Amino acid sequence: ISLTIKKCVAEVQAFIERCMVAVGTRASHARSLADVLIEGDLRGHYSHGLNRLDVYLREIRAGICVREGEPLLEKESVATALVDGRNLLGPVVGNYCMNLALKKARDTGIGWVVAHGKSNTPPYFSCFHALKLGMSYTNTSPLVVPTRARECTVGTNPISVAAPAKNGDSFVLDMATSAVALGKVEIHDRNGLSIPEGWGCDAEGRATTDPKAVLCGGGLVPLGDKETTGGHKGYGLGLMVEVFCGILAGSKYSNKIRNWKKTDRRADLGQCFVAINPENFAPGFNDRMSDLLARHRNLTPVSPGMPVLAAGDPEREHIQTCKELGGIPYDLKLVTHVNEYARTLDVSPLLPTNRLLK
Amino acid sequence: ISLTIKKCVAEVQAFIERCMVAVGTRASHARSLADVLIEGDLRGHYSHGLNRLDVYLREIRAGICVREGEPLLEKESVATALVDGRNLLGPVVGNYCMNLALKKARDTGIGWVVAHGKSNTPPYFSCFHALKLGMSYTNTSPLVVPTRARECTVGTNPISVAAPAKNGDSFVLDMATSAVALGKVEIHDRNGLSIPEGWGCDAEGRATTDPKAVLCGGGLVPLGDKETTGGHKGYGLGLMVEVFCGILAGSKYSNKIRNWKKTDRRADLGQCFVAINPENFAPGFNDRMSDLLARHRNLTPVSPGMPVLAAGDPEREHIQTCKELGGIPYDLKLVTHVNEYARTLDVSPLLPTNRLLK
Repeated sequence: ISLTIKKCVAEVQAFIERCMVAVGTRASHARSLADVLIEGDLRGHYSHGLNRLDVYLREIRAGICVREGEPLLEKESVATALVDGRNLLGPVVGNYCMNLALKKARDTGIGWVVAHGKSNTPPYFSCFHALKLGMSYTNTSPLVVPTRARECTVGTNPISVAAPAKNGDSFVLDMATSAVALGKVEIHDRNGLSIPEGWGCDAEGRATTDPKAVLCGGGLVPLGDKETTGGHKGYGLGLMVEVFCGILAGSKYSNKIRNWKKTDRRADLGQCFVAINPENFAPGFNDRMSDLLARHRNLTPVSPGMPVLAAGDPEREHIQTCKELGGIPYDLKLVTHVNEYARTLDVSPLLPTNRLLK
Repeated sequence: ISLTIKKCVAEVQAFIERCMVAVGTRASHARSLADVLIEGDLRGHYSHGLNRLDVYLREIRAGICVREGEPLLEKESVATALVDGRNLLGPVVGNYCMNLALKKARDTGIGWVVAHGKSNTPPYFSCFHALKLGMSYTNTSPLVVPTRARECTVGTNPISVAAPAKNGDSFVLDMATSAVALGKVEIHDRNGLSIPEGWGCDAEGRATTDPKAVLCGGGLVPLGDKETTGGHKGYGLGLMVEVFCGILAGSKYSNKIRNWKKTDRRADLGQCFVAINPENFAPGFNDRMSDLLARHRNLTPVSPGMPVLAAGDPEREHIQTCKELGGIPYDLKLVTHVNEYARTLDVSPLLPTNRLLK
């Protein structure tokens, strides 16, 4: 089983690299991006996997994402660093920063690294594949309407936190600070469905269940929704992420960031990476972490079929499903779509598709 | 005006110190506590101010909060520290840790300090009265029911973030990771009112608008409420705080923490303090921060009378109101209550009460 999934991952990996290299991306950068997109798909976050490939291809072709070069270390102390991402691919900047943060954490117990000039956002969880204790924030294009306001000025500004437990187990929180990600609204729109209350608002800042109203002039609402139920906290968390990204790094921030999916100019996003060495604190971190996870997974659920989970459990389950299937169950429409794009680049398609379909 | 408010603050300060010293607290510790409680009241968080005095008095009298001594530095690097709070008063431990974190931030750009053995929780925002860039987390007694579960295992585990802007302006986010704080449910209960949907659940984990069901066997729900609207994110944030407090510090955590308001044993809470020196990152932090705040405060609101705010604005407005009133507008019942307690300690009461009333 494990061999089959490895083969499937290798095929998708090679395909993404072929496409990226065909538009002029340095091979090692193409590989960093492929790693991150496949990790997204394996974890079941299809919106942030292969599905995003054409966005990266377009940004490279438009020249607003840089194909060559390395991030620049602008300033550092034993525990901190400021990095210029030079508008390279997000994962290239991300790997550079995270490795730097991890090195500093090994030396001094903590590494706090912020970057400006980061190109389009990769999935953030990828930074923690090594299952170190750490945290990552990134700002994004404005998609969220602040509490009491009627226009988008805050990104979905995700927070990502990973913490290792015993035997390879872990806690991986990876969440937008909006109630939901934009992709969920888009899927409801494509399927002609209304959205639940508490996801978005229209152009007047009023609650709506019409996905089109959210997508056309409205926006997502912060986690917590209305002010009565703590929406101002979600809005506050979105600004907190901005403080540690755009404000600390000196990148674009808030509604100074270009609109989502616009490729008219460089993104110049900010990102913040924090690595922490548990050995600098109380002994027995992994044991306590495992106990914390077990305490929650073993709780009696409200509905017998819906077990209480810890952050990262649904993703772990999806990885297991892929292993059992011997492949990543992609949607046929997606595979067709990327293969059509590949043809325009004169790149051989993703094959064999039969093993990759839902 | 400013003289009058100073006099009022000095009166309340002296009263709190008299009471705390009467039960055997070291004078300097009593002063640290008084600072924090008054800050809570000035900011309009009356639930965390003078209103909490009797809790601290009881814990000191019961001997589960320690009257004398200093926190112990157990382990440190240039950027991190592990502190044993020795079950001293929360603000005593908090001040020690925050000063240590600030020193490390001055030296290396960042200070990450965690403490175990902290007694009852003080208001967390107090740590940032100096308006430095920083963050604080604390775990608390289990009051929140995880997504899909039916019993409380997570505290309201607050997140506190402060960031300075120009001319003394600031961003101060200070939020429980539950939809609301327990105090709001208690107030509705005392006034015979039902609570809004999305605040709490009953003993079976079902949504309820009955405050008694929440207080008697039920619990608060995480920020985001139901799973459809991101309740699992609020639950994830609650556990994230636990990772950086109980798990990293080696204190009690989750449902190993004693029940709320139980004074049968020492609290042994965990807390995490992070101080960051903006000078280690991109120049112009305060300018960008002011611009970020202005961008949001100047947004067109949905309702003309309800301006768009930034985190910390309501508290700043309350401080201004106190200055204009020349005093802190306390509820008469509260003043009577603390004066009655003071009489049992043979301590002179809070006077003149007429200037302090609503």
